[in-house]
Amino acid sequence: MRTQQGLFAGIFGRGGVDTGDEAWLQAMLDTEAALARAVERAGLAEPGAGAAVTAVAQASAFDAAELGRQAELTGNPVPALVRELTRMVPPGLAGAVHKGATSQDIIDTAAMLLAREALSALAADLTATAAAAAALAAAHRDTIMIGRTLLQQAVPVTFGLVAAGWLTGLDDAREAVARVRAGRLAVQFGGAAGTLASLDGDGLRVAGLLADELGLALPVLPWHTDRLRVLDVAGAAAGASAILGKAARDITLLAQSEVAEVREGDGAGPGAGPGGARGGSSAMPHKRNPVGAVALLGCTRQIPGLLATLAASAEHEHQRAAGAWHAEWQPFSDLLRLAGSAASWGAELLAGLEVDPARMRRNLDDARGLPLAEHVASLLSPALGPTAAHDLVARASAQAAGHDQQLRDALLDTPDFRYQLDQAGITAEQVESALDPARYLGSAAELVDAALAAHAAAEARLAP
Amino acid sequence: MRTQQGLFAGIFGRGGVDTGDEAWLQAMLDTEAALARAVERAGLAEPGAGAAVTAVAQASAFDAAELGRQAELTGNPVPALVRELTRMVPPGLAGAVHKGATSQDIIDTAAMLLAREALSALAADLTATAAAAAALAAAHRDTIMIGRTLLQQAVPVTFGLVAAGWLTGLDDAREAVARVRAGRLAVQFGGAAGTLASLDGDGLRVAGLLADELGLALPVLPWHTDRLRVLDVAGAAAGASAILGKAARDITLLAQSEVAEVREGDGAGPGAGPGGARGGSSAMPHKRNPVGAVALLGCTRQIPGLLATLAASAEHEHQRAAGAWHAEWQPFSDLLRLAGSAASWGAELLAGLEVDPARMRRNLDDARGLPLAEHVASLLSPALGPTAAHDLVARASAQAAGHDQQLRDALLDTPDFRYQLDQAGITAEQVESALDPARYLGSAAELVDAALAAHAAAEARLAP
Amino acid sequence: MRTQQGLFAGIFGRGGVDTGDEAWLQAMLDTEAALARAVERAGLAEPGAGAAVTAVAQASAFDAAELGRQAELTGNPVPALVRELTRMVPPGLAGAVHKGATSQDIIDTAAMLLAREALSALAADLTATAAAAAALAAAHRDTIMIGRTLLQQAVPVTFGLVAAGWLTGLDDAREAVARVRAGRLAVQFGGAAGTLASLDGDGLRVAGLLADELGLALPVLPWHTDRLRVLDVAGAAAGASAILGKAARDITLLAQSEVAEVREGDGAGPGAGPGGARGGSSAMPHKRNPVGAVALLGCTRQIPGLLATLAASAEHEHQRAAGAWHAEWQPFSDLLRLAGSAASWGAELLAGLEVDPARMRRNLDDARGLPLAEHVASLLSPALGPTAAHDLVARASAQAAGHDQQLRDALLDTPDFRYQLDQAGITAEQVESALDPARYLGSAAELVDAALAAHAAAEARLAP
Amino acid sequence: MRTQQGLFAGIFGRGGVDTGDEAWLQAMLDTEAALARAVERAGLAEPGAGAAVTAVAQASAFDAAELGRQAELTGNPVPALVRELTRMVPPGLAGAVHKGATSQDIIDTAAMLLAREALSALAADLTATAAAAAALAAAHRDTIMIGRTLLQQAVPVTFGLVAAGWLTGLDDAREAVARVRAGRLAVQFGGAAGTLASLDGDGLRVAGLLADELGLALPVLPWHTDRLRVLDVAGAAAGASAILGKAARDITLLAQSEVAEVREGDGAGPGAGPGGARGGSSAMPHKRNPVGAVALLGCTRQIPGLLATLAASAEHEHQRAAGAWHAEWQPFSDLLRLAGSAASWGAELLAGLEVDPARMRRNLDDARGLPLAEHVASLLSPALGPTAAHDLVARASAQAAGHDQQLRDALLDTPDFRYQLDQAGITAEQVESALDPARYLGSAAELVDAALAAHAAAEARLAP
Repeated sequence: MRTQQGLFAGIFGRGGVDTGDEAWLQAMLDTEAALARAVERAGLAEPGAGAAVTAVAQASAFDAAELGRQAELTGNPVPALVRELTRMVPPGLAGAVHKGATSQDIIDTAAMLLAREALSALAADLTATAAAAAALAAAHRDTIMIGRTLLQQAVPVTFGLVAAGWLTGLDDAREAVARVRAGRLAVQFGGAAGTLASLDGDGLRVAGLLADELGLALPVLPWHTDRLRVLDVAGAAAGASAILGKAARDITLLAQSEVAEVREGDGAGPGAGPGGARGGSSAMPHKRNPVGAVALLGCTRQIPGLLATLAASAEHEHQRAAGAWHAEWQPFSDLLRLAGSAASWGAELLAGLEVDPARMRRNLDDARGLPLAEHVASLLSPALGPTAAHDLVARASAQAAGHDQQLRDALLDTPDFRYQLDQAGITAEQVESALDPARYLGSAAELVDAALAAHAAAEARLAP
Repeated sequence: MRTQQGLFAGIFGRGGVDTGDEAWLQAMLDTEAALARAVERAGLAEPGAGAAVTAVAQASAFDAAELGRQAELTGNPVPALVRELTRMVPPGLAGAVHKGATSQDIIDTAAMLLAREALSALAADLTATAAAAAALAAAHRDTIMIGRTLLQQAVPVTFGLVAAGWLTGLDDAREAVARVRAGRLAVQFGGAAGTLASLDGDGLRVAGLLADELGLALPVLPWHTDRLRVLDVAGAAAGASAILGKAARDITLLAQSEVAEVREGDGAGPGAGPGGARGGSSAMPHKRNPVGAVALLGCTRQIPGLLATLAASAEHEHQRAAGAWHAEWQPFSDLLRLAGSAASWGAELLAGLEVDPARMRRNLDDARGLPLAEHVASLLSPALGPTAAHDLVARASAQAAGHDQQLRDALLDTPDFRYQLDQAGITAEQVESALDPARYLGSAAELVDAALAAHAAAEARLAP
Repeated sequence: MRTQQGLFAGIFGRGGVDTGDEAWLQAMLDTEAALARAVERAGLAEPGAGAAVTAVAQASAFDAAELGRQAELTGNPVPALVRELTRMVPPGLAGAVHKGATSQDIIDTAAMLLAREALSALAADLTATAAAAAALAAAHRDTIMIGRTLLQQAVPVTFGLVAAGWLTGLDDAREAVARVRAGRLAVQFGGAAGTLASLDGDGLRVAGLLADELGLALPVLPWHTDRLRVLDVAGAAAGASAILGKAARDITLLAQSEVAEVREGDGAGPGAGPGGARGGSSAMPHKRNPVGAVALLGCTRQIPGLLATLAASAEHEHQRAAGAWHAEWQPFSDLLRLAGSAASWGAELLAGLEVDPARMRRNLDDARGLPLAEHVASLLSPALGPTAAHDLVARASAQAAGHDQQLRDALLDTPDFRYQLDQAGITAEQVESALDPARYLGSAAELVDAALAAHAAAEARLAP
Repeated sequence: MRTQQGLFAGIFGRGGVDTGDEAWLQAMLDTEAALARAVERAGLAEPGAGAAVTAVAQASAFDAAELGRQAELTGNPVPALVRELTRMVPPGLAGAVHKGATSQDIIDTAAMLLAREALSALAADLTATAAAAAALAAAHRDTIMIGRTLLQQAVPVTFGLVAAGWLTGLDDAREAVARVRAGRLAVQFGGAAGTLASLDGDGLRVAGLLADELGLALPVLPWHTDRLRVLDVAGAAAGASAILGKAARDITLLAQSEVAEVREGDGAGPGAGPGGARGGSSAMPHKRNPVGAVALLGCTRQIPGLLATLAASAEHEHQRAAGAWHAEWQPFSDLLRLAGSAASWGAELLAGLEVDPARMRRNLDDARGLPLAEHVASLLSPALGPTAAHDLVARASAQAAGHDQQLRDALLDTPDFRYQLDQAGITAEQVESALDPARYLGSAAELVDAALAAHAAAEARLAP
């Protein structure tokens, strides 16, 4: 399908996932070649037939565009491919070509081969992304920043915890990718209607040999009309996309000019080229656009719709679907490519992320202590009761917010408030201590440690 | 994006809609060239600048893959394109290139140019499809067939009415396509943030000239962050897809071996090629697969998910979206391509459809009169009352169904039933008349006529 | 379906759109009553039948839950409803009940009645939203703020232009809603398979009278299997949702603590209740959450998926779909409800929006003149040539950004830069003038005026 | 959300999945009660606080509609719920209410509780559906029928293999549901921004106790902005929906009047009620609508769009999403409800399915031997070579199809064909044998056996 090359490939076709036409064609040919070898091994073809088919099953020897044109006669490119392949094999050995198979066997198995490579490439980039997230979590375990809920400043967190959140999600996504890759990819081989009738009693034996040749699992049944494997692959990639999108969204928000707590590295290496570093603007010299995060989101935002198409296409009629099967090929290819591209962006994005702890601190300081209002109220609560405590702090907060004043000053310098604090036996030192963000981080550090430990365990589990 | 050529293009890239890389590149270049001419007309560039830019703005002179690679630095291919274009224009005239514009202006306007051509091509194929539907409706105005609800035989209809249903939907879809094409395609020109600041006070004048050069509407405001135009184009194409899918679904169902009331023409013309006629199977000589309808459904089933992606991507932030905009390009391209391909299939499918009135009649006859049970009951109702009438016919129907008997015979040859009929004064002739499908078609013929009249009016309205 | 009452109704069920069970039931009963009157007017029922049916066709007299239970026998609630309705009408007049109709006639026509009310309610809230946007655009025609692209500060815009962007989109959405409401809602009346056979030759006459009774259009054909009307209603509501979401997204971003250029009104009226004003937090006294914008987005984000379901469900088989029709009812109801709820939130959100021009100015000032770098470069360009001009300003900008310096100071106080300016004959006054945001607004004011003029025209056009 | 009761509940709200308002409210209250007990166990509340909160945490004591109204002040119903709950607890113990929690903790944990029950109910109905599929596969292991590809008759299969295909998919779906239920449901407890700051150093301990109280897993990190768990639940339910939809689609097609190889049981038990058995039509006595399969498809067709909404909503901002979180609640509830309803339909549908082997045989016989053409060609191939063999059979098939003749007769009674057969040494007996469908079933029986064996293993693995 859409290749890794083209006008938009730098954005939507990065990384190692290749589900383009050439890759599809080669995967179909690999399936045909493996089938010929399996048929030979089963004693159903002349010796040498497998090798002969394998020798010519090179995508570069075929004209994909011409196969594409022929495809309109049959609704898929396999018959023309088989015809061409048969023509290229010595006549005496041609009987091994496509033996026992139907077009769907070839396309579905090819899809599994593509998925295997795609999930590997996706896993590699997710691994790199997770490693970068882990490094950020470790390095910024105690880097205080303001937490934000509903896009409003809330209470302090650490950047380490933010990165740990990405990390944990990435590790979960990796587990899913690994699980599907290891357990859900299977050869499809059923013949015209799933009975392997044309192989007489040899069908299951050939199927087993085909699976062996391709290194794919042999399923209980041909799965031509049971599309859960397709959905599982798509679901794993969509999960990866979901957590990548979350991280990228955070980065675009944290990189906003007014926030500026992180910024993308410029991705400029030796090959940065005439356009210079990433994110620059020829017109506006001050700009440093978060190109990686934006491109990543440009990929991930396309995935839910493709996932829906695949889910809706799972309703296959009888022994071969009249449309639903065909509707899978492009979304499946596109979804894997886009998830892979997103992961490739993610790996670079997190590895190069520039974090600005000073700015994080300044943004927190600029909040005038308000994010600690809750903490101060909890200090007063035992003495004043929760309602009065909340009320006092609320009024002080409103005053601070309204007069651009520190909450500390509002509390301690306003006679009315100070009087109440004194009555409650609360000292200025206690107030100041409660206003220290470092004292209101709860379990942030332990959580970062837990995420890093879980990541180490995941690494051990997922190691190739 | 995906070109009209490739391994699956015969299925998903038929017809005149071209939203591939080359088409995108040319549309961007056309926009840049038109801008240069507009700038010159506005007196903001040297005479000849417009012509100079126009002369070199040929997609064939650019390396799309290289632009694609450069795109990863900025998140879109326009900056590299502009750099290249500038290099190709005589230095003294290069100031006219991209003047006042931002990347989004070029991509959004290019999208509108692509949409204009795409909707034209789509409209042409819809027109052909509608013409074929009208011909079928007229030819089969009185061809009786069994109507089916919930995939069960119900009461008689005519094939003319079926075709008229397709026709009316197709005409409605054409109206929507025409409306959007005529009224919703507009130039996008706003500069860095929609104010056209870099053109000083000349922005709106240049915008107007640009619109004039391109033959696109000048919108009230730049629409860079108001994506309703994108949704309107997509919605019109999705509507066309919906009705095409309905027709194709009907055809696959009517073409089932057990129904066999229609079958696809073989689409074989002089260029049918080595694969022979469409729908044949090299392995199973008896098969005549409904390839066109299946391929059409393979296209249309992909569209709802793409439509959802576009709708979800309409939430653009501030003056330029960080991801949502980028997420539009591929779904927009794919949706138009697939709708166009579906319409191309539709035109051929309906034009070549082989209708078998004899089989329709036989299928109806095989139903043993049961589809007329409702009619017979209405005959008895005045005399027996509705409940008793229904009950009698229900029992007779059950007997007919259970004993593979004609409902006529069940009613007239079963003494108990015949007695009741006699008592009610119902003659055998009346029963037989009520069992004549041709007498239970209601307003079918008038409806066909109405649809054809509406079609004629639509033709007049939509004539180019 | 889901009613306007319930645990989440305050968020997802605001405003006047009612597509809950009660509303559905009443719409079905209204259809049945109108049909009885039409049948009577056509002379096919006893005088008084229409009135008799109308008199009892009150939702409150029916047990929706019981009808729901019965629905599992037939796949829809109409047969049980008809049985119950028939029971309630004097026997002699009961023949008028449901005469000539099939369940789908009742449900589809009821859906159109619901849509009519829903689109009215949606239109009313969109009108209020647009009015508020227009007021904001007018009031802030010249309120300067920083424009932001890819979530980075770019060049100055006005808040008036931002609001005008919302306004133009809202007006376009209103046009679409009005167009669909006026032109695409039609009675569905076709009987068992679309021929109106059971009404003999009277079908079209009854259909016309039914349309007349309900104030719905009479379509060319029964549209039971042509779902473009459903898609058109959904598309119009989805368009409204898209532009509402854009505005809400802008507001959440502008209301961020670090940006603080707008904030939501507290929506507190006399009935604010014990929870106090909207957006407060009992725990964190400093918070003012943008509840309205967030809730609005909570509504709009659900709509693309529902739209996809409806588009995918348009492929109806034969004369009545086996599943696709049923799959429409809930998404159709939910989509309208959510769009209506979003519009209700939008009207309140924009009407109560508190805009802070001083903060906008301060944020712009804090940008140290960098957003005007492009403007300064254009000042230098004639004298220095574009490349040298860009280079000089880029270096000065980098220096300003790196040293927390004003771009003005970097340019004028750095000897090297100042020398080049002097050589080019550029005075400090010229530089300072170029750095004035008010002088780099391009056509912003004219665009606001154009949007307001277009809005006035839309008002005239759309006036009830 | 939408309750199990209502006008459409008989169709879309069957089975044990309950994600209605009442269930949500109770799940939130269960979470609050468990939290109070956990807080007490941690020594952070007075003894008895947990019991006191638990005692009053009954949904029936709360006014969901009023909570819904209050929800519009804060964007979710929890603050009002907490206020009410606090009011109901003795003052001295009220400090345990909602301690350390934020609204999202309650809603997300409640969602997990709902999901646990929902997945259990779904699993139970899937188990019943699978058992019925297994029974069908076993009973019809050798029941020959025609296989159909692209809705055309292809080659023979067995109905056992068809049912085995459903079975294998159902078992895979059950594995996924069980895996997610056992491994992916976890308590969410993070406080205002995920640090549990307000519990000081006790946060993780309380979190562990809360998990213990609820029987949910304790996650590595609070997952408030990592939505993979939500997607995993949705994905498992969507997978179940996919295979259920496949089975239902097959059934609607096999139940077509013209095919009639299966029909639905009437679902009529003692409580069938006044409407009588399922699928009957009051107007058309001959009809037996496949109501269960149609209703099932009405459920499953809504799921892909809801899945897409959840996937698109996974992009949560910072420490709490501004809209994406809210957009999850309804799709999550609806998706689970619809999957559960589909599974409930599925269990009844498959358990009651009436299979007609005689009709299957008749339909095959009516095919005049054409489905065996491939088999005959393979018989001739060794002697004639594949091309000549195919050609001969193709011509004979065309003649048979065109003249309503048996392929046997065409081959044996046409002198030209017979001559070639004789020359090849093929006897009439051999031809007749090749035309026996029972001799062209390939591995069908073995595959059924394999599916049943795998099912037995799955039963053992998944046993409660």
